[in-house]
Amino acid sequence: MRTLKLGMVGGGNGAFFGAAHRAAAAMTGRFSMVAGALSSDPVRARESGHDLGLAPERCYDDFETMAKREATDGGIDLVAVVTPNHLHAPACHAFLDAGVNILCDKPLTATLDEALALRTAAADSASLFGVAYTNAGFDMVREARAMVAAGEIGTVRVVRVVFPQEWLATAAEATGNKQAEWRTDPARSGAGSLGDIGTHAFHLAEFITGLSATALSAEVDTFVTGRRVDDNVTAKLRFDGGAKGLLWASQVAIGETNGLRIDVHGDKGSLGWTVEAANQLAFAPLGGRRMVIDRASHGTAFKGTMPPGHPQGFIEALARLYLDMADQIDARRDGRAPAADALLLPGIRDGVRGLRFVDAALRSGAEDGRWTDI
Amino acid sequence: MRTLKLGMVGGGNGAFFGAAHRAAAAMTGRFSMVAGALSSDPVRARESGHDLGLAPERCYDDFETMAKREATDGGIDLVAVVTPNHLHAPACHAFLDAGVNILCDKPLTATLDEALALRTAAADSASLFGVAYTNAGFDMVREARAMVAAGEIGTVRVVRVVFPQEWLATAAEATGNKQAEWRTDPARSGAGSLGDIGTHAFHLAEFITGLSATALSAEVDTFVTGRRVDDNVTAKLRFDGGAKGLLWASQVAIGETNGLRIDVHGDKGSLGWTVEAANQLAFAPLGGRRMVIDRASHGTAFKGTMPPGHPQGFIEALARLYLDMADQIDARRDGRAPAADALLLPGIRDGVRGLRFVDAALRSGAEDGRWTDI
Amino acid sequence: MRTLKLGMVGGGNGAFFGAAHRAAAAMTGRFSMVAGALSSDPVRARESGHDLGLAPERCYDDFETMAKREATDGGIDLVAVVTPNHLHAPACHAFLDAGVNILCDKPLTATLDEALALRTAAADSASLFGVAYTNAGFDMVREARAMVAAGEIGTVRVVRVVFPQEWLATAAEATGNKQAEWRTDPARSGAGSLGDIGTHAFHLAEFITGLSATALSAEVDTFVTGRRVDDNVTAKLRFDGGAKGLLWASQVAIGETNGLRIDVHGDKGSLGWTVEAANQLAFAPLGGRRMVIDRASHGTAFKGTMPPGHPQGFIEALARLYLDMADQIDARRDGRAPAADALLLPGIRDGVRGLRFVDAALRSGAEDGRWTDI
Amino acid sequence: MRTLKLGMVGGGNGAFFGAAHRAAAAMTGRFSMVAGALSSDPVRARESGHDLGLAPERCYDDFETMAKREATDGGIDLVAVVTPNHLHAPACHAFLDAGVNILCDKPLTATLDEALALRTAAADSASLFGVAYTNAGFDMVREARAMVAAGEIGTVRVVRVVFPQEWLATAAEATGNKQAEWRTDPARSGAGSLGDIGTHAFHLAEFITGLSATALSAEVDTFVTGRRVDDNVTAKLRFDGGAKGLLWASQVAIGETNGLRIDVHGDKGSLGWTVEAANQLAFAPLGGRRMVIDRASHGTAFKGTMPPGHPQGFIEALARLYLDMADQIDARRDGRAPAADALLLPGIRDGVRGLRFVDAALRSGAEDGRWTDI
Repeated sequence: MRTLKLGMVGGGNGAFFGAAHRAAAAMTGRFSMVAGALSSDPVRARESGHDLGLAPERCYDDFETMAKREATDGGIDLVAVVTPNHLHAPACHAFLDAGVNILCDKPLTATLDEALALRTAAADSASLFGVAYTNAGFDMVREARAMVAAGEIGTVRVVRVVFPQEWLATAAEATGNKQAEWRTDPARSGAGSLGDIGTHAFHLAEFITGLSATALSAEVDTFVTGRRVDDNVTAKLRFDGGAKGLLWASQVAIGETNGLRIDVHGDKGSLGWTVEAANQLAFAPLGGRRMVIDRASHGTAFKGTMPPGHPQGFIEALARLYLDMADQIDARRDGRAPAADALLLPGIRDGVRGLRFVDAALRSGAEDGRWTDI
Repeated sequence: MRTLKLGMVGGGNGAFFGAAHRAAAAMTGRFSMVAGALSSDPVRARESGHDLGLAPERCYDDFETMAKREATDGGIDLVAVVTPNHLHAPACHAFLDAGVNILCDKPLTATLDEALALRTAAADSASLFGVAYTNAGFDMVREARAMVAAGEIGTVRVVRVVFPQEWLATAAEATGNKQAEWRTDPARSGAGSLGDIGTHAFHLAEFITGLSATALSAEVDTFVTGRRVDDNVTAKLRFDGGAKGLLWASQVAIGETNGLRIDVHGDKGSLGWTVEAANQLAFAPLGGRRMVIDRASHGTAFKGTMPPGHPQGFIEALARLYLDMADQIDARRDGRAPAADALLLPGIRDGVRGLRFVDAALRSGAEDGRWTDI
Repeated sequence: MRTLKLGMVGGGNGAFFGAAHRAAAAMTGRFSMVAGALSSDPVRARESGHDLGLAPERCYDDFETMAKREATDGGIDLVAVVTPNHLHAPACHAFLDAGVNILCDKPLTATLDEALALRTAAADSASLFGVAYTNAGFDMVREARAMVAAGEIGTVRVVRVVFPQEWLATAAEATGNKQAEWRTDPARSGAGSLGDIGTHAFHLAEFITGLSATALSAEVDTFVTGRRVDDNVTAKLRFDGGAKGLLWASQVAIGETNGLRIDVHGDKGSLGWTVEAANQLAFAPLGGRRMVIDRASHGTAFKGTMPPGHPQGFIEALARLYLDMADQIDARRDGRAPAADALLLPGIRDGVRGLRFVDAALRSGAEDGRWTDI
Repeated sequence: MRTLKLGMVGGGNGAFFGAAHRAAAAMTGRFSMVAGALSSDPVRARESGHDLGLAPERCYDDFETMAKREATDGGIDLVAVVTPNHLHAPACHAFLDAGVNILCDKPLTATLDEALALRTAAADSASLFGVAYTNAGFDMVREARAMVAAGEIGTVRVVRVVFPQEWLATAAEATGNKQAEWRTDPARSGAGSLGDIGTHAFHLAEFITGLSATALSAEVDTFVTGRRVDDNVTAKLRFDGGAKGLLWASQVAIGETNGLRIDVHGDKGSLGWTVEAANQLAFAPLGGRRMVIDRASHGTAFKGTMPPGHPQGFIEALARLYLDMADQIDARRDGRAPAADALLLPGIRDGVRGLRFVDAALRSGAEDGRWTDI
């Protein structure tokens, strides 16, 4: 296997998620980071590149230049876009135009219009496009999806997904917290809890069930005084096929560090998963007993590389997405179909779905919870 | 303390909840069961009374006769009404008219109109009136209520309450299951999951928070073909003071035996409780650590009679309600105020709230989830 | 069914375990308490009897008199002995001599010699004899025993049982805590953690596995300065059939209210149970998935009287032992065999086993952990 | 920061732990793998090297040659030794002689004699020496150690550590399982469950408490017929300072994938941790409430690189050890003291302790559990 060359937009010194992406890419053993436009501040961009051992000539001041220069023989095989949300669209357009493969952080863009334009551009581009819904990289999330697809819980009736966090329970954005600042600034984030974690919850629901949510009725709130974006959303969902759902995303839920949890109930059984116990999957068949399915254990389809009991963490999940992308890149080069697993990498359609969810929720919330098509 | 004389309407041989009530009353040491109209079938009523050791002259064929006869010196101090829902109203009216104290099973009645009429009658009567929302008897539910009242979680922002069960995931009512038969018969039950478990969830939310839900937006479904009542409800709630809520009640949730769970998030902390771990209460203060508060342990207000670690079960919780009623009866007789704890016994107002919830949910569901006042 | 007449020795006002026994007996609906020698202090004995509504002539100053008077037509059917440990033996002898059925609290006696003498007396007596190892009354403990007996985990290899508590982590006996005073007084308790909770752990191990422990190697410690009995015991166990075990009993384990837990590993599967989640049983079959078996749920043998999801608590478990005794009493009177379940009531053999365990542990501990026959 | 050059002995294609080491080293961003003697089979060694992209001239047939060649300017900065146990000693000697820094898998060696000889050689060598007790890399294990050191649980009284696994519950070594084959072959593994997982448990106990175990009394069993090494060990421990302990290591515990768990009870509080919920730490202070401390959350000392709620998995923990080693290497080069955290990397002393534990357990087991000095 040839080592693939990775570039990065955003993710300079101090940006935690860029570091997570680099660690994830590195641990796959498939990528070597060689280029970056690591900050919109050119000085910081160069310092960050130096600290990461990039060649000076591949530390770019801006992503436009980077896209042009790297779109050549010997250029990067993949760019990871890990900027604040409002820069996803222009950065992705630049690399789509250049024909460079992209793994973009979620939400895909800050607005639905941007997402739709990006989808159009992607359709015209030779680039592969992945969206980093990290939870799709956990073995037990894929196991859950496979079990639903195999009919182990029958026809889905009810989907319940919650994503509570506590980190914005007070006005952290007013105290110099940089993450809080841009994520609560509508110009940079697009939306608040809806975009940051609501899209994760929504994607997980569609990813595991294989269903599309067709409409929602949402209540969108801002509990912290002075905050400019939503920080709590409660919604009812309708899915194709008649399933019903509940979604809760909150950044003011004290005691919850990152409590993403989903329960899917069908007419033959149910499944439950939470990132807090990411290596287990709860399963209950009709007329049977409640079970805990351990990662990589008896009868699981997704075994990863480690034996059961060795817990898979956040970076491993993200690394799974990089492995999927590596396989897609290799497959295209080799003229073969990618492995079926590699196609589980969320793509631009999933990114657009996220923005459709955000947009529908904001409209429904503004109209007293009217059922709104997604 | 004088032993109080207990009568029962409903609860004949084979009715599990009648047996639970008798066990709960007995374990308090305050009640002796002496009379009953234990079945609408006179033969079964007499047989059941005989099996329970009642005097033959106090085994009644109907509750009207029982109410008249027992409303005399030497008559019962309390009647427990544990019939199917549609008989709650006439039975309670009979005993209200007779001035006998009542502990009625929930939901208070089959319809909101019946509940309102009963409330009027109760206001004109000398009877004490309790409603058996059993969960209000768990020490840790009372602890949660006291903590909210004491401001330990600040102003409530979000309330999430779910009550999933699996027992009606298939058409159990078509297979000779007597419980399923009457509970899915609208004439006897009033509503399905809404009345049977939705009212529990709704009461718990109001009981712990001390708030009133002012409106809801509900989706009311029947998933099992041929079923005549709802078996799954998802709803958004609005509370006075601005808190928002989510409620889910389902009788088709495979893998869930009785999964009542509530989470209350305020601006200073959060609380979580589930009947599946009824002796623990989760608590997280702002800026602090997540805690597990054990029943009867350090710093708890509600210690019950047993040391920490000795788990309190369903019957003990129900017994707590009987103790509350006993204290109310004694206090009235002695011309003193009841203990503060005894006033936590849910009353007719709470019963009416339950039916308001059911009624609002049915109307909202019929109008595509329109926000509907409760 | 005839109501049985219950007497009690010990358990006067303020003694929590006497109240627990009365509640348990009452909730069965089979017993009516009519007599007692409720305290070794005659004034307190009479006051307690009055408060419980006993007839004055059946409130006895001492158990010797009570045993003689009640051993007549119309006398009690059962006596519950709930005194401090050192009085178990004389009280039980008195009622054995009188031919009255006995349910004695655990440990059976304060010393092994007393236990052996009691066993001899019991063999010569017409009395039925039960020992209140309460955990044997939990449905899921019985379920575990039945599953082992049915071969569901194959041949037992390893048994791990722990019973940590925190209540004696400091010198509570020096601060006026009455429970701590007598339980740490060797003259009244016999031993410390060994007798009080070690016997529970040991009984549970033998009860669930159906095996006998043949030898142990123990380390017996007293961590709290000035304490006169053991407060922490670690031991290895050998069982007949070759299984090995670990036992830990501690009263100085901060954070543990009552953490009794057992795990049994066989060559075909394993089982796990803890009183902290008494309504669930963990089960893992060889080559299968980990399961949670809920009380009264699919495929369980022991269903009790309540549907799944309605948790069984400590009092219900103790009530189960009273029901077993009631059935044994009725069966003897009716000349029939008791129900198989009723024979699960621990008896004098189990009581003696407990004292054998205490005695062997003390000897092993005194001899540097030498393997000592039980 | 200069990228460090990594070599590896063992870990060729198909060896899961070699892949884990490579992923862990890569994700730190500090190491680049450049050389290896990846298999004792030269053909497989070269194929593996090729697949990993190593230069052919740095794919060695044997570790002796590798040690000599790489001990030069431009040679590797660190070698990871991930062979079967019996090859640890000769490989480490070769690199110690060459002055190359070493990170060796655990157990340090197959026998105590080998470990002692290695310790002597290490004392005479310029090499840094780390031992890959992976659990020492989890943030919450380090948090636990820091809390004990800070006196948050006072003087340790009781340590309970268990490490149950199920993977050798049947004779997997007879079915072609390569891992099972060498790990149950005394010539290659040294001991069975004692060396493979007992050493993990023992190290964790000493690491967290900061105490040394002074003696043990062990029962060493082989439950699976035909197995040539131990597969189940139960032991009592004594620690300096008077603490007592229990240890259980088992590879025949059905239902347990990797159930390492430790509980430490002191006179001021207790701590509990399990790798199955590696991102949480249970803490109970005397007279307070039970708490769950989340990784990287309020008041934790060890925050790693990711925010709270993003779970740290097995590879991240191993990566932590590589980061520690990188900092030690850099610090030595720069003539500064390593960061305090970096010194938490287990070293050769810890490796020797592991073999002392194995040796003492085998001797105690052979002498009927006699207390044996460690």
